[in-house]
Amino acid sequence: MDVLDFAPERDQFVYTFGGSQPVATIRPGTALRLWSEDAFNNAITSAMDVPSSRLDPRFLNPQTGPFFVDGAEPGDTLAIHIVDLSPARSWGASATIPFFGGLTMTDRTSLLHDALPEAAWIYEIDSAAQTVGFQARHGDFELALPLEPMLGTVGVAPAGGEVHSSLTPERFGGNMDTPEMKVGATAYFRVNVDGALFSLGDGHYRQGEGEACGTAVEGAMNSTVIVDLIKGGGPAWPRLETDDHWMIVGSSRPMEDSWRISQVQMIGWLGELFELETMDAYQLLTQISLVPVANVVDTNYSVVTKIAKSLLPERSAFGGLHADLRDRARSMM
Amino acid sequence: MDVLDFAPERDQFVYTFGGSQPVATIRPGTALRLWSEDAFNNAITSAMDVPSSRLDPRFLNPQTGPFFVDGAEPGDTLAIHIVDLSPARSWGASATIPFFGGLTMTDRTSLLHDALPEAAWIYEIDSAAQTVGFQARHGDFELALPLEPMLGTVGVAPAGGEVHSSLTPERFGGNMDTPEMKVGATAYFRVNVDGALFSLGDGHYRQGEGEACGTAVEGAMNSTVIVDLIKGGGPAWPRLETDDHWMIVGSSRPMEDSWRISQVQMIGWLGELFELETMDAYQLLTQISLVPVANVVDTNYSVVTKIAKSLLPERSAFGGLHADLRDRARSMM
Amino acid sequence: MDVLDFAPERDQFVYTFGGSQPVATIRPGTALRLWSEDAFNNAITSAMDVPSSRLDPRFLNPQTGPFFVDGAEPGDTLAIHIVDLSPARSWGASATIPFFGGLTMTDRTSLLHDALPEAAWIYEIDSAAQTVGFQARHGDFELALPLEPMLGTVGVAPAGGEVHSSLTPERFGGNMDTPEMKVGATAYFRVNVDGALFSLGDGHYRQGEGEACGTAVEGAMNSTVIVDLIKGGGPAWPRLETDDHWMIVGSSRPMEDSWRISQVQMIGWLGELFELETMDAYQLLTQISLVPVANVVDTNYSVVTKIAKSLLPERSAFGGLHADLRDRARSMM
Amino acid sequence: MDVLDFAPERDQFVYTFGGSQPVATIRPGTALRLWSEDAFNNAITSAMDVPSSRLDPRFLNPQTGPFFVDGAEPGDTLAIHIVDLSPARSWGASATIPFFGGLTMTDRTSLLHDALPEAAWIYEIDSAAQTVGFQARHGDFELALPLEPMLGTVGVAPAGGEVHSSLTPERFGGNMDTPEMKVGATAYFRVNVDGALFSLGDGHYRQGEGEACGTAVEGAMNSTVIVDLIKGGGPAWPRLETDDHWMIVGSSRPMEDSWRISQVQMIGWLGELFELETMDAYQLLTQISLVPVANVVDTNYSVVTKIAKSLLPERSAFGGLHADLRDRARSMM
Repeated sequence: MDVLDFAPERDQFVYTFGGSQPVATIRPGTALRLWSEDAFNNAITSAMDVPSSRLDPRFLNPQTGPFFVDGAEPGDTLAIHIVDLSPARSWGASATIPFFGGLTMTDRTSLLHDALPEAAWIYEIDSAAQTVGFQARHGDFELALPLEPMLGTVGVAPAGGEVHSSLTPERFGGNMDTPEMKVGATAYFRVNVDGALFSLGDGHYRQGEGEACGTAVEGAMNSTVIVDLIKGGGPAWPRLETDDHWMIVGSSRPMEDSWRISQVQMIGWLGELFELETMDAYQLLTQISLVPVANVVDTNYSVVTKIAKSLLPERSAFGGLHADLRDRARSMM
Repeated sequence: MDVLDFAPERDQFVYTFGGSQPVATIRPGTALRLWSEDAFNNAITSAMDVPSSRLDPRFLNPQTGPFFVDGAEPGDTLAIHIVDLSPARSWGASATIPFFGGLTMTDRTSLLHDALPEAAWIYEIDSAAQTVGFQARHGDFELALPLEPMLGTVGVAPAGGEVHSSLTPERFGGNMDTPEMKVGATAYFRVNVDGALFSLGDGHYRQGEGEACGTAVEGAMNSTVIVDLIKGGGPAWPRLETDDHWMIVGSSRPMEDSWRISQVQMIGWLGELFELETMDAYQLLTQISLVPVANVVDTNYSVVTKIAKSLLPERSAFGGLHADLRDRARSMM
Repeated sequence: MDVLDFAPERDQFVYTFGGSQPVATIRPGTALRLWSEDAFNNAITSAMDVPSSRLDPRFLNPQTGPFFVDGAEPGDTLAIHIVDLSPARSWGASATIPFFGGLTMTDRTSLLHDALPEAAWIYEIDSAAQTVGFQARHGDFELALPLEPMLGTVGVAPAGGEVHSSLTPERFGGNMDTPEMKVGATAYFRVNVDGALFSLGDGHYRQGEGEACGTAVEGAMNSTVIVDLIKGGGPAWPRLETDDHWMIVGSSRPMEDSWRISQVQMIGWLGELFELETMDAYQLLTQISLVPVANVVDTNYSVVTKIAKSLLPERSAFGGLHADLRDRARSMM
Repeated sequence: MDVLDFAPERDQFVYTFGGSQPVATIRPGTALRLWSEDAFNNAITSAMDVPSSRLDPRFLNPQTGPFFVDGAEPGDTLAIHIVDLSPARSWGASATIPFFGGLTMTDRTSLLHDALPEAAWIYEIDSAAQTVGFQARHGDFELALPLEPMLGTVGVAPAGGEVHSSLTPERFGGNMDTPEMKVGATAYFRVNVDGALFSLGDGHYRQGEGEACGTAVEGAMNSTVIVDLIKGGGPAWPRLETDDHWMIVGSSRPMEDSWRISQVQMIGWLGELFELETMDAYQLLTQISLVPVANVVDTNYSVVTKIAKSLLPERSAFGGLHADLRDRARSMM
């Protein structure tokens, strides 16, 4: 297996999907060991930091990449299998940022309120216990929460020559902020431009569904992923597969549209996998779908439709690539 | 423990929350053994049934009740603990109904399309295996799915003299259609009128999150519940408690508002339980919240915010009533 | 013409559509001269009043009625023609109310902000100039604005035994808050219960489109309306007709659904009036529709689709009833 | 006055805001006489054309530009005054396109319906009468509608290195599709990149509010505009000024967010113009705002907040630039 290690210099960070030159060209099947900076661009390092005076809106959610995947052409399927996610620092940070988040007015849900109080929280990692520590700012409440690393942002260059901020989740993936993007998951994206131009970042040491305040336990991350390519078959919206589940992520506004996208896409997928007519697949989906919300804070909201494989006869999606990638991942350990 | 058995005659079915005379008066602490008709009012009994010619829009989602709870006054907390849910028939039914459901145009999301194909599916129960059987209408795909009974509709009379269709989920509960309303759960509602006027119905033998096509595996149900009362403390929106989770259900449109309601309410609840300041509770919620969607098909959409008790120090909500009700439930077995 | 004068006593005010006994029975064709209290229930009478301490949420938006219209049966069309609207006081009032309005968080768009400042504004009427006077609370800015009386709330009892707060706009009309509900307009509603049970209130001496802060220049009103009945033909959603325009009001959430409802309904109406096939009517509507927003503050948002008669060949809707009512109205002057 | 004539060659068309090299550099104060292709890229020329087989999704809504404005820097205000709009062809076209438009399911409001019938309509211009002719496809209904030319799309390059399709309305302007963008209007945009990189296109010979079916009477257009620059003061969202009105366009989803944006921005503008405290401006806006919907079909929905100058004391916005541009426009006639 080809293996490439890459840790971007600060001036190599990219802040968009599309619009950037690749940092490297890789062959399908390559394993990448990547370092990514946290979404704050390391500007929040203490609970004393005032987010609005520390954060530079031009430099949020830096991505590592993009990578040019040899042979990837529009319409193909790019697969990213997450082999390992390891915190690259001993602490993560979270913050409330003025007019950003799910329970505050924003530049879109534009109201006449003053900003909510802004503040930072630092979560120390306990490596032995595999926890991150929450510490209340007011009072002495403390809590050790399981370390559950995930990637908030994984995506490819958009279609149509568009360039989107790395804060945006969309058809091309991007800032979907779903806790399902974790070790053992394979993400599938439709390739929109030659080389796919895949990048990732926004490591979260832990995140609840919805990412209510707008920021998870953000942290620099060491990610090991295997990148692979299937000619053709690119899905309209990002798909995820684990040993246990098939998933599709829809991202739009209002949130019911995100849900509708992910559900209609899943009806199509179930239809293909089990040769089900559309209304039959709609009926079956109705009784078996799980719907964990991903984010309600980004420029689009993301909702996941999730199907337990255990409920269904065994089938191989994408030619069995996920199982194959799992094997390859094990071989790296 | 007082125990009351009640199976309504057909002419006793009610189709609203509010606006009906109670069928019985009960004391707090009473256990009810109730029979409820299915949401189709037993109009779909065969896969050959054409829903639009069988269903009478005036008589959908019949409720069993309402019950007048002695001593319940506006502002109080009504607790409904689900002791047991047992299918009252050997089969359940689901259907696609013209212009009803999550992936069709509706009377609200009003477009110019023709109706999707309407159809019925019958799910036979296998009591030994504890499954319900899905059978595709096209082709011969069959699937046994776990029987997981729940109640789609539980609620009390609304405030302000309003009367709402039993198809509506709202502050007063009603047609929330969350799979979390299952055996072992305690639901808490704010009492809005003297006697609370609690009713329930809409048994589901199984339902996915979102209830995409608009109807679960609908079935007549034998429900055993214990009804209890706490003076004062009525929550603004319905809450649910199990041995493992605290939950709040928000119901509104668009779906992000349902989510916002449930999240803000949970911040308040976490704040009370753990003496957390609001922004600290917001931060903590962000990292631990689960958000399983309930329904995206009713007159309001329902979203659940769900917190695992295992992540937090032990606390008793509502004076430990849930644990107490669990004990009482066990004593009935 | 039968003429009935009615000014409710305070204990005759009603606060819902549906759920109340009629105050009088009238024959179709009756002219009503009605007095209605303002939406604050006269609780705001000075710019010094603090809304939250003056307003009683149980007694907002009192309606005058309901009237039982002889012969009105479900499915019929009730027509309300507005002959005259005259302020019943020399001043109107407006207010910002905590967590109510379009540019504040609300109980639905539930966020973590504190309430916006609450305040009252009193608008003195200058009868000679036919203006209402705006006076800024901070600084000495003053402005005379044209007096343009309208009714925020006109409606009939809902279908299905439902009872809705008079604060709600819906299929049955209600609190639509459109400035189009003014002298010279005929409103058409589908009758849902025997007698229709029509009521009105919520006089506005003036209102912008959207009613941003949640309250117009609210004032007690003397309304003269003629009530008439057409057997059958009840429209699914409220329609308005003036000498110059045909209009339909959709009320739902999110706002695009209100718009969709009013547009689809208008396509149907244009189709009937001009014998246009649906796609032709859709195309024509696209090029001629006006869309003035009504309210973005109530429990549903209301959007008007409005067609200028001058653009189209002459047609009579509802059998020419509007022109006839205009004649009858003139005869009363 | 500098005057520049420019008609792009087909290979000079651009399909994005941002991401393209300027076609020319101009000094502030320059008048441009521009030709723009229609939004279909001239692919619909007959009522027999089948849109989905004629339209190439890569080449929709071609823009004329972008122009580099000398001295324009981020934060500045670019003013575009529309001096004249003249149809560049003797006919315009409209169409229903599968899964595009306001009353059909789309790629976002994703449902399970088949596409609505697709079709084209050709509108012949009667130059003498200044009308465009609607002809029903079914039956022989014909109608002459006033020619009312406007530009669907006017904008500048986005901030943050983003590149957006010319089908998108946003903060940077773009495809707002408001009938207010007509002769006599001055549009103000915040400059986001050096040179502003302004472009325009999407001529409409006529359009209703909402642009329901997704396409107006689309036509190639000869546009005369004067481009000017104010250092600093760039508005957060596009503003429009005519002799009679001040306007702000908000574009987002759901539609209430578009409305909120335009209303909050207008409160700010009224506050500046009349030295009003925020709550006073909110109150005043509530009573005087007009809200004509622009589009409910694009990737964002656009809503206009519109204030009649006649209701208010005289004030000059942007240093009186609009009046000045009107004078300069007259001098060109």
